[in-house]
Amino acid sequence: MGAMWLLAALLLLAAASPAPRPRARDLGVPFDGTPGAWNAITDVAGVTVGHETIVSGEGKLVVGKGPVRTGVTAVFPRGRDTDRPAPAAWFSLNGNGEMTGTAWIEESGLLHGPVLLTNTHGVGVVRDAALAWRIKHGPPDAEGYYWSSLPVVGETWDGELNDINGFHVKPENVARAIETAKPGPVAEGNVGGGTGSICFEFKGGMGTSSRKLPAKRGGFTVGVLVQCNCGRRPQLTIAGVPVGREIPEQPAYGEDADETGSILIVIATDAPLLPHQLERVARRASMGLARLGSISGNGSGDLFVAFSTSDPSWDAAKRRYTTSYLSNEDLDPVFEATVQATEEAIVNALVAAETMTGIDGKTVIALPHDRLKKALAKYGR
Amino acid sequence: MGAMWLLAALLLLAAASPAPRPRARDLGVPFDGTPGAWNAITDVAGVTVGHETIVSGEGKLVVGKGPVRTGVTAVFPRGRDTDRPAPAAWFSLNGNGEMTGTAWIEESGLLHGPVLLTNTHGVGVVRDAALAWRIKHGPPDAEGYYWSSLPVVGETWDGELNDINGFHVKPENVARAIETAKPGPVAEGNVGGGTGSICFEFKGGMGTSSRKLPAKRGGFTVGVLVQCNCGRRPQLTIAGVPVGREIPEQPAYGEDADETGSILIVIATDAPLLPHQLERVARRASMGLARLGSISGNGSGDLFVAFSTSDPSWDAAKRRYTTSYLSNEDLDPVFEATVQATEEAIVNALVAAETMTGIDGKTVIALPHDRLKKALAKYGR
Amino acid sequence: MGAMWLLAALLLLAAASPAPRPRARDLGVPFDGTPGAWNAITDVAGVTVGHETIVSGEGKLVVGKGPVRTGVTAVFPRGRDTDRPAPAAWFSLNGNGEMTGTAWIEESGLLHGPVLLTNTHGVGVVRDAALAWRIKHGPPDAEGYYWSSLPVVGETWDGELNDINGFHVKPENVARAIETAKPGPVAEGNVGGGTGSICFEFKGGMGTSSRKLPAKRGGFTVGVLVQCNCGRRPQLTIAGVPVGREIPEQPAYGEDADETGSILIVIATDAPLLPHQLERVARRASMGLARLGSISGNGSGDLFVAFSTSDPSWDAAKRRYTTSYLSNEDLDPVFEATVQATEEAIVNALVAAETMTGIDGKTVIALPHDRLKKALAKYGR
Amino acid sequence: MGAMWLLAALLLLAAASPAPRPRARDLGVPFDGTPGAWNAITDVAGVTVGHETIVSGEGKLVVGKGPVRTGVTAVFPRGRDTDRPAPAAWFSLNGNGEMTGTAWIEESGLLHGPVLLTNTHGVGVVRDAALAWRIKHGPPDAEGYYWSSLPVVGETWDGELNDINGFHVKPENVARAIETAKPGPVAEGNVGGGTGSICFEFKGGMGTSSRKLPAKRGGFTVGVLVQCNCGRRPQLTIAGVPVGREIPEQPAYGEDADETGSILIVIATDAPLLPHQLERVARRASMGLARLGSISGNGSGDLFVAFSTSDPSWDAAKRRYTTSYLSNEDLDPVFEATVQATEEAIVNALVAAETMTGIDGKTVIALPHDRLKKALAKYGR
Repeated sequence: MGAMWLLAALLLLAAASPAPRPRARDLGVPFDGTPGAWNAITDVAGVTVGHETIVSGEGKLVVGKGPVRTGVTAVFPRGRDTDRPAPAAWFSLNGNGEMTGTAWIEESGLLHGPVLLTNTHGVGVVRDAALAWRIKHGPPDAEGYYWSSLPVVGETWDGELNDINGFHVKPENVARAIETAKPGPVAEGNVGGGTGSICFEFKGGMGTSSRKLPAKRGGFTVGVLVQCNCGRRPQLTIAGVPVGREIPEQPAYGEDADETGSILIVIATDAPLLPHQLERVARRASMGLARLGSISGNGSGDLFVAFSTSDPSWDAAKRRYTTSYLSNEDLDPVFEATVQATEEAIVNALVAAETMTGIDGKTVIALPHDRLKKALAKYGR
Repeated sequence: MGAMWLLAALLLLAAASPAPRPRARDLGVPFDGTPGAWNAITDVAGVTVGHETIVSGEGKLVVGKGPVRTGVTAVFPRGRDTDRPAPAAWFSLNGNGEMTGTAWIEESGLLHGPVLLTNTHGVGVVRDAALAWRIKHGPPDAEGYYWSSLPVVGETWDGELNDINGFHVKPENVARAIETAKPGPVAEGNVGGGTGSICFEFKGGMGTSSRKLPAKRGGFTVGVLVQCNCGRRPQLTIAGVPVGREIPEQPAYGEDADETGSILIVIATDAPLLPHQLERVARRASMGLARLGSISGNGSGDLFVAFSTSDPSWDAAKRRYTTSYLSNEDLDPVFEATVQATEEAIVNALVAAETMTGIDGKTVIALPHDRLKKALAKYGR
Repeated sequence: MGAMWLLAALLLLAAASPAPRPRARDLGVPFDGTPGAWNAITDVAGVTVGHETIVSGEGKLVVGKGPVRTGVTAVFPRGRDTDRPAPAAWFSLNGNGEMTGTAWIEESGLLHGPVLLTNTHGVGVVRDAALAWRIKHGPPDAEGYYWSSLPVVGETWDGELNDINGFHVKPENVARAIETAKPGPVAEGNVGGGTGSICFEFKGGMGTSSRKLPAKRGGFTVGVLVQCNCGRRPQLTIAGVPVGREIPEQPAYGEDADETGSILIVIATDAPLLPHQLERVARRASMGLARLGSISGNGSGDLFVAFSTSDPSWDAAKRRYTTSYLSNEDLDPVFEATVQATEEAIVNALVAAETMTGIDGKTVIALPHDRLKKALAKYGR
Repeated sequence: MGAMWLLAALLLLAAASPAPRPRARDLGVPFDGTPGAWNAITDVAGVTVGHETIVSGEGKLVVGKGPVRTGVTAVFPRGRDTDRPAPAAWFSLNGNGEMTGTAWIEESGLLHGPVLLTNTHGVGVVRDAALAWRIKHGPPDAEGYYWSSLPVVGETWDGELNDINGFHVKPENVARAIETAKPGPVAEGNVGGGTGSICFEFKGGMGTSSRKLPAKRGGFTVGVLVQCNCGRRPQLTIAGVPVGREIPEQPAYGEDADETGSILIVIATDAPLLPHQLERVARRASMGLARLGSISGNGSGDLFVAFSTSDPSWDAAKRRYTTSYLSNEDLDPVFEATVQATEEAIVNALVAAETMTGIDGKTVIALPHDRLKKALAKYGR
């Protein structure tokens, strides 16, 4: 009897939890390199990710009411329980976007606190709410570190599907993204800051991937997380295949529209790198994005941030940090992993995102998996 | 009888309006170059400035209650009635601070909307509130221009005197700074974003100055506005005189304190300059700041933005802008004016600011005018 | 009788001029966009190119004697008969290389004189010899312009094939590259600065391509010239096809070698662009390079320079330049053309270069055309 | 008898060695901070400096013959006997000049080999000759390090006094500058790369200074070397005193001339700093230069390079460097020392340089020491 109840419960659970969406590799998209356990930015030990997804309403846009299709994503380099900053750098491939806190990253070589991702009109509230959250959570951490007052918040425009002028991101959403950040698998597609994203005129959103280098190439892990909201359909190239031309139907913008998108790319690594080396890593995300066929259009805010989880040690008596770092001559594997994981993270975002209907009934279709497979096959992939 | 009333009214008015604070020149501080009519950034035709000053409470700090000593300043390159962007650039002398919107200034060469200045923890609300204000005020302007969604908001830390963790800047404060922006004289000292500022360990705040070049040097006007919150007392040099050492009393931080300040510098000019030339102008503000004895300490967010009010014309048929601009060989007068006006704007901030008591009864003294004059005299100035 | 002589002469000529090497398009490599008449940087009106190729000796390396496999290439934005500078910008994707004169390009927004390309150890002599050439050729030009004293000279390392430590580039070589610069078709492959280049471990060298935009997208021409000396074999991707893996034989460096290459990319356009817009264009060359599979390895000096041949007019009375320029919103076609022409120029370099034997009998093979065609066919291209 | 010979020899020696020129401090110029033993860049242990001064001819300019007033200066971060690179960075305050090798400094964070300083038209020969010198001196050093092929060569224009179009710097001059580099006192004024320099329209040249920080501020040494060839007379400010206006006579250029100068600033420190921190240090040289009254005019190539002699250790087994470095919070003393030593090095250049007559009999006067003292006294200094 009890067994029957259990069986029934399991069946209900199975019905409620649909088979997980496949990821790009599951569809047979060929990628170079070897991913980590989760094929996610969290494969870099210590990194945690939290998504807060805000979806409500349907039908006609009423500013301030909805429909709402947005969210917040938080990426912590070392988790939430330490305030120790991480060596970091950033790069702007095309600065039609916002990433707060970058002047200090560039000056200090450090990332304090999380990287937060949201929609364009939510940057302010996310920034101040992150500060408020940290203030509320007490004094400096056990080692005496505290956030700077210069949070890092990036954005992409989701106003095609979301009531962006309604300013629906609230401080409590930010707190939840922060508080739910965790290691392990990372949700992709229509979640967090990428909830309302459009990517190469398919439904876009969050995507992630990682590379684990073989021991003889350093053995490091590189993880990438993207909030992909950029690109025009005809550009889309996957594994060298002109997928965008093979699947021209229902483009989100239409032939003569301006690109209004953007892409945020967060790169994490456990390779011990100095800030100027991380800037080199951040720059390589451009090469990964380019593999998708992007030209980094004028309307696209293509902003990248890279950090290392390596851990300089502080000698309070000598007042010095000590750190290890790689020779420049040993960086190529890290560069290559960054390019590869960026490419795959974007494809993962496309594969994970599901068709969404937003403001005024506007629908953006997901990349149809069967058509993708057909296109790959057509070009010997 | 009517005349007597009038006389009484005038007397009351005079009593209510104390003699205006003298400015640095009134005290005999020698500066090079010739200022414009107001010796203010508003001498550059079209530029408007609005200050919203937020002061309330006294005594012990209760976070969220006060005391409050902060504000918002808005600087419009072309006034509030057009959305036409201005050619612009920015420079970070020391990036321990925030200025949102700079990735797009750098990429586009344009400033959309105003430059907004506030306290460190007010950046987010000011940014989003500026967007909300613009959205509320309707569709694109008569020429079809609209703000980008990337407002420019700079900050300095006023937490020595202000309940900064209380987040007291509200959207309505931002709206008022925007709506009260006007040409003509500009209030200095404890106003707007500089209400709670500390400058070379005297009370600081907003300061402004301008230079009008002679016709044979181009005839252009350069105006500078500073939110001065930087510097240590012993560094302070005015007109080459070691004023900080001559007046060592009551330093705001004390001997071993870290500098926690910052300075924001806004440079306006009617000289027709291209964005890359404006970047050169912005960089020169460093040289003006250096004349005060600053070393741009690690803790100081020294962020500068420069714009030109020159007006590229748009030919819709040809889809081209046309603009005039100066030869690089003719820039020295503009550089010199920038250095001079930056120097004087900072001294004006020091001279205008008045002693203020803030949180927990902490008092920061104003630069005593008589002592300044004495110091100048001692060194033959 | 005369006819027979003529026939004989024509036959001799035909024998002496082998059929011209096909270019990438002739082999069926699919590219997007429409090239100009020459599919070369010289499709941008006014641009001239001169190659000086220096080849001598065979067999064992004797430093100072040879074998010599090097040269100099000169690119003039407006030809040799004017000294009027061109609006310009540069970008370093990976700064493991030299490009002199870039501090002034960045500061002034101008390119004075030609862009000169040579080998790493020839930068100095080329730089000084360019100055000496200009000095020798008299006073400022008809309009009063003269070169700055800051020539622009880029380099790639050709020491795998060339006696680079023998310093074989001489002032007279520089003069000849300058003096032979001309419009029209541009020689590719083992010529000029690219004589000894290695590209994705095939023989590399000079390559060029152009795009002519349709009228409704502005009608502008973008031309690109590359000196391609970068890349590892397994990375090489052409039109999305993993050509490097399909043709793994005889890699120039071998499996565990460090990349020692570099790529110089020169972008010309008649689109009227301001310097900061040209910097955006230069940055896009990264995206074209990435399409070849490059990760911009640590050892690669990937330096790009972009200029516009648009022509600001000078009003001597008003002391102002006047110029037209595109709206940022209209730049995407120029960006796209840059990406496409960069990609094709690199493939053209690979297709044009011929197998070369250099120092110590080292041979680097050309990309075999038949194998390339086979690889393309295999992947449905 | 022997004693008499000795006495005579000493007298002859004294006659041949005139009393050493006083330095700025000897004239009573007040500076802040405490210099090292030599008050020179060589106070940073390991740093060596060599000057090669090239002076010949008098009278009318005959291009290629003379008069010649130029030279080469070499600064080695760790002396000539190691090729180990030094952590480094550079900054361009005004890029109207050349400093080769900077793309690689920026990318790698390293300075390989010496910094070389010469005249504008000598950059090429100095660059190639430095390479040739290193090649000639054999294989990699004992630790396996070797120079990159990207020498760092800066320049200032000395064509007011020197036959600059005669290209008088030869490879043997470069070799001598390198081979004579040594620790200890550093010659100033009309020597090395600064032989023909003009500084604030007085005779300029090489100058140096250092600061030794007290133990409680880290105990580090900062040394600065300048090749000072910039500035207009009316700008010149020394210790806050308007010296240029007090001594207006015989300006080198005259009232309406364009500034044609430049200043190169080399900053050395034993403080353990990462490359991005050294970039911050390099930027501070701007503040020191500004204290002299400079506005960094358009015509001035103001290029700065900073390096640390701290010594990352290499673990060949782990393939990692390990290094110590300062907290950003501890940098202010280093910044301050940089500003102070830059200021003093420039004044030292002015004080050391002697009146020189160059091409066509043109004479540039030295700063008259008595007049300087008088000006200082007039302003209470």
